[in-house]
Amino acid sequence: MHWIIRYILPSLAVSLLFFPDILTASEKGTEVTSETKLSPETQTCIGCHNIYTPGIVADWLSSRHSRITPADALKLPLLQRRISTEKLPDKLSGYAVGCYECHSQNPQSHKDNFEHMGFRINVVVSPNDCKTCHPVEVSQFSDSKKAHAIKNLLENPVYHALVNTITGVKRIEKGKIITEKPSEKTLHETCLGCHGTKVEVRGMKKVSTKMGEIIVPDLTNWPNQGVGRENPDGSLGACTACHPRHAFSIEVARKPYTCAQCHLEPDVPAWNVYKESKHGNIYFSKHHEWDFNSVPWVVGKDFKAPTCATCHNSLLVSPDGEVIAERTHDFGSRLWVRLFGLIYAHPQPKSGNTTIIKNKDGLPLPTTFTGEPASEYLIDKGEQEKRLGAMKNICNSCHSISWVNGHFEKLENTIKETNEMTLSATRLMLEAWEKGIEDKTNPFDEPIEKMWIKQWLFYSNSIRYASAMTGAHDYATFKNGWWELSDNLQKMRDMIDIKYRLLQKRDKEKR
Amino acid sequence: MHWIIRYILPSLAVSLLFFPDILTASEKGTEVTSETKLSPETQTCIGCHNIYTPGIVADWLSSRHSRITPADALKLPLLQRRISTEKLPDKLSGYAVGCYECHSQNPQSHKDNFEHMGFRINVVVSPNDCKTCHPVEVSQFSDSKKAHAIKNLLENPVYHALVNTITGVKRIEKGKIITEKPSEKTLHETCLGCHGTKVEVRGMKKVSTKMGEIIVPDLTNWPNQGVGRENPDGSLGACTACHPRHAFSIEVARKPYTCAQCHLEPDVPAWNVYKESKHGNIYFSKHHEWDFNSVPWVVGKDFKAPTCATCHNSLLVSPDGEVIAERTHDFGSRLWVRLFGLIYAHPQPKSGNTTIIKNKDGLPLPTTFTGEPASEYLIDKGEQEKRLGAMKNICNSCHSISWVNGHFEKLENTIKETNEMTLSATRLMLEAWEKGIEDKTNPFDEPIEKMWIKQWLFYSNSIRYASAMTGAHDYATFKNGWWELSDNLQKMRDMIDIKYRLLQKRDKEKR
Amino acid sequence: MHWIIRYILPSLAVSLLFFPDILTASEKGTEVTSETKLSPETQTCIGCHNIYTPGIVADWLSSRHSRITPADALKLPLLQRRISTEKLPDKLSGYAVGCYECHSQNPQSHKDNFEHMGFRINVVVSPNDCKTCHPVEVSQFSDSKKAHAIKNLLENPVYHALVNTITGVKRIEKGKIITEKPSEKTLHETCLGCHGTKVEVRGMKKVSTKMGEIIVPDLTNWPNQGVGRENPDGSLGACTACHPRHAFSIEVARKPYTCAQCHLEPDVPAWNVYKESKHGNIYFSKHHEWDFNSVPWVVGKDFKAPTCATCHNSLLVSPDGEVIAERTHDFGSRLWVRLFGLIYAHPQPKSGNTTIIKNKDGLPLPTTFTGEPASEYLIDKGEQEKRLGAMKNICNSCHSISWVNGHFEKLENTIKETNEMTLSATRLMLEAWEKGIEDKTNPFDEPIEKMWIKQWLFYSNSIRYASAMTGAHDYATFKNGWWELSDNLQKMRDMIDIKYRLLQKRDKEKR
Repeated sequence: MHWIIRYILPSLAVSLLFFPDILTASEKGTEVTSETKLSPETQTCIGCHNIYTPGIVADWLSSRHSRITPADALKLPLLQRRISTEKLPDKLSGYAVGCYECHSQNPQSHKDNFEHMGFRINVVVSPNDCKTCHPVEVSQFSDSKKAHAIKNLLENPVYHALVNTITGVKRIEKGKIITEKPSEKTLHETCLGCHGTKVEVRGMKKVSTKMGEIIVPDLTNWPNQGVGRENPDGSLGACTACHPRHAFSIEVARKPYTCAQCHLEPDVPAWNVYKESKHGNIYFSKHHEWDFNSVPWVVGKDFKAPTCATCHNSLLVSPDGEVIAERTHDFGSRLWVRLFGLIYAHPQPKSGNTTIIKNKDGLPLPTTFTGEPASEYLIDKGEQEKRLGAMKNICNSCHSISWVNGHFEKLENTIKETNEMTLSATRLMLEAWEKGIEDKTNPFDEPIEKMWIKQWLFYSNSIRYASAMTGAHDYATFKNGWWELSDNLQKMRDMIDIKYRLLQKRDKEKR
Repeated sequence: MHWIIRYILPSLAVSLLFFPDILTASEKGTEVTSETKLSPETQTCIGCHNIYTPGIVADWLSSRHSRITPADALKLPLLQRRISTEKLPDKLSGYAVGCYECHSQNPQSHKDNFEHMGFRINVVVSPNDCKTCHPVEVSQFSDSKKAHAIKNLLENPVYHALVNTITGVKRIEKGKIITEKPSEKTLHETCLGCHGTKVEVRGMKKVSTKMGEIIVPDLTNWPNQGVGRENPDGSLGACTACHPRHAFSIEVARKPYTCAQCHLEPDVPAWNVYKESKHGNIYFSKHHEWDFNSVPWVVGKDFKAPTCATCHNSLLVSPDGEVIAERTHDFGSRLWVRLFGLIYAHPQPKSGNTTIIKNKDGLPLPTTFTGEPASEYLIDKGEQEKRLGAMKNICNSCHSISWVNGHFEKLENTIKETNEMTLSATRLMLEAWEKGIEDKTNPFDEPIEKMWIKQWLFYSNSIRYASAMTGAHDYATFKNGWWELSDNLQKMRDMIDIKYRLLQKRDKEKR
Repeated sequence: MHWIIRYILPSLAVSLLFFPDILTASEKGTEVTSETKLSPETQTCIGCHNIYTPGIVADWLSSRHSRITPADALKLPLLQRRISTEKLPDKLSGYAVGCYECHSQNPQSHKDNFEHMGFRINVVVSPNDCKTCHPVEVSQFSDSKKAHAIKNLLENPVYHALVNTITGVKRIEKGKIITEKPSEKTLHETCLGCHGTKVEVRGMKKVSTKMGEIIVPDLTNWPNQGVGRENPDGSLGACTACHPRHAFSIEVARKPYTCAQCHLEPDVPAWNVYKESKHGNIYFSKHHEWDFNSVPWVVGKDFKAPTCATCHNSLLVSPDGEVIAERTHDFGSRLWVRLFGLIYAHPQPKSGNTTIIKNKDGLPLPTTFTGEPASEYLIDKGEQEKRLGAMKNICNSCHSISWVNGHFEKLENTIKETNEMTLSATRLMLEAWEKGIEDKTNPFDEPIEKMWIKQWLFYSNSIRYASAMTGAHDYATFKNGWWELSDNLQKMRDMIDIKYRLLQKRDKEKR
């Protein structure tokens, strides 16, 4: 039955002395759907790595990749399939998806390809490699905002200025604050921790391991698993952002902790809001009884309240097998509105690459300074309604139409009101610039400007997320909600008045 | 054995083609204590809703309501019973508590009663409906502050002013901030998300469903499950605030995530504090081994550290069956002091309706501006000691008397000190008003006033909750605790000085 | 098999009427490795306490202490042992570790020893008592900073001043803020909640119990389980800080909620950062499949992502039984750098007692005001590298060397940059003092000083913790990270300018 064990035993007879525990680890595996053969290359990898990085091997042994061959995976009925290719390369189809199968893909495009213990392998496994078996997912992902996460941040001069202002080291010179350009390492572990870094091959380097010195590629900004990572093969994205190596678990990706790595307060408090919601309550109280591994995911049977994945990307079916929502790895594709204000909430952009947007102010932003959307780059009413309808269809599995409509009418009003609150803050900002209190050259670096940023980036966003996700009433009221939105506006007014009075005095004295 | 299945099979033979999965769902049910018959009406409901809102049906199938008839529930020994009526209406007693049983109760008082597919049903199931089987719980709840949660907030002019100041949209007119009246929708998803909305029938409306257009009541401020909701039948409350539809699980209500929907930082950080406490640590580490479904709830056997419900409302017995605490659904009834400062901590009010309170300043507040309690409306020493004794009795199940006394002496000192800190902030507030720096007409809308609010509503409250719940030392020290309480007082002092100096200058210039 | 039951039955035949449930509780126990006899004294304790504090008895019944005798524990292979003594006192070795065994240790040194129902027992069980069976752990702990947690805080005049400034009640006298000395009770539930209180015997006192009045020691600052508690026997520490009474579970100590009682935002956000990290994600998603009770703890087999204990103190072995890290209860001993800035991050101190440190400014701080380390009191390069190597060895179980190196290079840069940011804030602080805007006598009590504290105590610390623990990118960017670090520096600049201008005016007016 456990062919994986019987198979390893003879072929790795010598190594066995070193890792008898592989038996136990494998026996803990939950489900062995077929006899799974390992390729000779992968067996060699495991032979050493089970000694030198045993955690990686153990993790992989718990994965589906270790327990089914692509050929067998392809035999499943369409809705139950986790691979989307229709045709497999011959040399992959009959073995478990092991170390070598993934790390040897497309060597020609991998600048990080190198010789390691007699094999040519790549350090980084990229979406383009995963594409061999999962082409539909990679293709959907590639058009998404997530895949363009670095470019959208750093190649947009407005956002880039914000990034630099926040993360650059500040020195005091003659009492003045001088902001340096942020270091690559700090960008790497702040913004680009989630957005992804640019991983390039600088050359080769020696590293000391327990096996002695070895030569490996010297990568820039590594390690990183940001969702929009630029890989040494030129591809965009890191599947491991959500499917952590080397178990690549659908359970992990469906549980909300995965999204909670990045979608967090104060700027994108999706997770914070979910935790306080009724859905979150039911998830935390009852998820130990649910099935996070079943494909397709059956509403009411496998789970009884949604996680992030339920609404945003999973393939959902009803208990009688009717498809409620198709799987998607373009995470914006079920969304009609972009709650995340830049600086106002607006319809979703048409393209995952948002650097192409130009608003009427001439800036690469989806709305103007006073809130007018750059409509030509954003989805139209028809598309918005289509997507809202798709989302409502998901809600409708557990809620009456009337309930669902009431919910989304509330959200629509909240978008309107928070946009109005952003406009009020923007008006005060304009006043401060006009009065010469602060300088608009860099709109992100002075105290009143930072209050203004908090209005739209933290508080308006928070209220909209709380509204969208059926709950988090206290969050919308006090914690980063209306309390802050109102208090901060008052503080802007106050600080403008104080500084203006001092400015007038100084001017008077000068005269 | 699984009578529910055998029963549905023949009677819904046609529909069976559409929902074979009901078998699986039911088989997953943990406990079938008796043969459970469904009423013909409920069978009809399920016939369609299993297709159109399968999540609701699956959720209900996991409930106790689906697995036991009221008549059988009544046969259990008193301490094990989950229904409190002594006599059941004949037509209910022999069927599982299904869709129709709940949604058809008391049609004469339900303005939301309407004809739906040949049956007259109510949209909203209210406490007055649950009362049929659970009269003691509803009666206890009806006297509580929770049942009066809307009135206590909106019909108290002081709190109402605070609500309006926070949640009203602000516009800038000639540089001034103009606060509009908050919209119903925003109140609905902020304050009233927890406190409950007023749900009234505006008329009837058409909605498009998968079955075509249907006519349903058009409800105001719907959906909402706030704990003090005003229902279309005139009753107060929503049992579903804590027992989510349609599983109505005691497990969910006993787990702390339920209370965590509303009792949150920064104003009522019960959940935040619990998470950081020793009790919270033990809960998170070990609750997978505990039994949250057993009635009565046995200390040491079913659980080994308290959740919110343990101390505040569950029926607790010792392993030898002795009652440690009686069940209550008046959640203030085991409390002697109200930690939640308005503006000072004070003895619990006598009545759940707190709008009747008048303090010596003539305001509907439990304390005066300088901290004198409106004693006539608050419980007296004797009652306080009785309730403290009841709480100590719970603690004593796992802690020595000496330990428990030490704990509550600490809390008493904390109440005194935080009230003193509130008084200090109030003195500075008075100074600001007297000096004409801010205007006391609306005591909640200017920057120093907002600092003052934070002193009592956020920081003093936080410290008291941290003190009461045996832990959260860091919370009491830094996060929303003494650090903030001291820093914010300093900032009040500072801002008064800055503004007063500028004010004096302006006055001088005018002269 | 369940000898504990058969044993209790005859000897407590009378009491049995009162607690038949002890059978159930014990039957739930997961593992009974041998026949476990209770001492006659412990049987007597249980006879009453099962009635009067049943939660304590039930908790203990779930412990390993109740299920194995020290003599049997000693028979296990070395790596599997949970006791570190090599020789046991005769009278302890043959019984389960029950009430009397622990509460009667070393009576001569226990000022809290008293006669209770015919036995002489101690109220507080101290590390010196646990040492009987666990001498290695106690010895490691005794040299750690944790064991000196009270002294390090309160006997260091700098930190003491900070504590007093934060936690003392403030009164307003003639408009001025007067800070009182903090009360013992408030210290007890703020700083000393984690650091530990000084527990001394004031005398004896009567308490009313369900058995009538009894006489017990009157302890100061009790209850407390702070990690550096000073006990009535003169010893330092509370094992129960991490191994809660009376289950003393290794599972609880290994789960991250235990550390999360104290290591929290805003000053030490280890837990907050872990929750947002990839490691945290995997823990939350998958820990239900892991084994937190196994000794030694096998990487890849017992767990697949680290908790706090994994990296900081557990005995780790590879699946093939090779020791990856030795167990330690000196929690700093695997650390090379102290991320926690005082006021700058610096190499770990040599001694757990940090009051002995003197920097070049003559202050008991590990760095000077401008960041120069007091190197003579801190570990040297060689020791730092040794410890960093030990930590990398743990990471290497699941990550390649190259990955691990990249991670720690990032951390090193972050330490440098955040120290630079602290220096910038310090320069502004110096300017404010030099200009007479604030008074350096107490460097912790005025508004700009508090901003300065936030720079190093909250924001720089947060960024370093986020960097060290592989994740929490959003935390490092926005929440208490670079956003705050930059914004707060600007606010310092701004407030200095405003106050200085007002100060100049006042001076001008005076002239």
